Amino acid sequence: MSSSLLFGTFEVSRQAFFRTATTAAIVNLKPIVPGHVLVIPTRVVPRISELSPEEASSLFLSVQTVGRIVEKAYNADALTIACQDGKAAGQSVPHVHFHILPRKLKGDHFVNNDDVYPELESHAQELQQAFRINAKSESENSAPKTFAENLKVDNEDRKPRSVEEMEREASWLKGFMEG
Amino acid sequence: MSSSLLFGTFEVSRQAFFRTATTAAIVNLKPIVPGHVLVIPTRVVPRISELSPEEASSLFLSVQTVGRIVEKAYNADALTIACQDGKAAGQSVPHVHFHILPRKLKGDHFVNNDDVYPELESHAQELQQAFRINAKSESENSAPKTFAENLKVDNEDRKPRSVEEMEREASWLKGFMEG
Repeated sequence: MSSSLLFGTFEVSRQAFFRTATTAAIVNLKPIVPGHVLVIPTRVVPRISELSPEEASSLFLSVQTVGRIVEKAYNADALTIACQDGKAAGQSVPHVHFHILPRKLKGDHFVNNDDVYPELESHAQELQQAFRINAKSESENSAPKTFAENLKVDNEDRKPRSVEEMEREASWLKGFMEG
Repeated sequence: MSSSLLFGTFEVSRQAFFRTATTAAIVNLKPIVPGHVLVIPTRVVPRISELSPEEASSLFLSVQTVGRIVEKAYNADALTIACQDGKAAGQSVPHVHFHILPRKLKGDHFVNNDDVYPELESHAQELQQAFRINAKSESENSAPKTFAENLKVDNEDRKPRSVEEMEREASWLKGFMEG
């Protein structure tokens, strides 16, 4: 699982804990709940409508499998699944991504269930900020950056995690894989 | 497309505008934006993890196809796609359903992009209310009710639509089907 993997222009191979021929799942720089992960097609396309039937089918089977993994790993009872499919829907990085967030009946991170959504939005804005910096550095022909390299500053409670920390979570999650 | 179709305990066949062997798409009693529709498996199961690989794959291909249809029909630029997979994630009716909402770069229903989510939550609560009434009437052995029969009262701006109105929209959307 060490071959190159891009999320938009970000190099995220060390964050990956699940891969198929056409999809991958990565842990987050700044998860909004423990176990908040992203499922992406390995081909960088902005819209779901651009996926081939094989890619679309595989993506959803991956959402199903990865959902099972994080729900089990984080002792959760349910999953919030969301995709901002296009800029007008609040998409930050122009690369199809499904958010998967483990949710709990007791002791959930959010007292009000729907408070998860403003957090998702703020998460998107942070990604967008990092993406813009990355796109700028890309246009200057430098190598793709990791999230952490682009998002050192954090004005919130959630701290961006180090690549090492994300790698540890990814490695731990691999242990929950079926088969 | 007139054979029986259930969403939880609701009879929704007249609201359907898209069907495959294992999935369907239905228009909404109270859409939170124009073109807000639901994609469901025809088999009534609460969780995505309960879907067979064939059902899961078909469900996502349906999300893709139905997304294209409503984006085109409603002249939209993007789609908000969300699934509350389980009660702890805010799921109202215990039957897998993907919300698909057309979004616009200009003239979107929501000035702040993320205001869509509290509306989705309130939508879920209304569904849950209707579902509870339906479950009660089911336990009394009466026939499955439509949404409208169970949700006459509305304390908000959005009025529940009549079956006839939903049927007209469903019929109109069928005209946008490819092939």
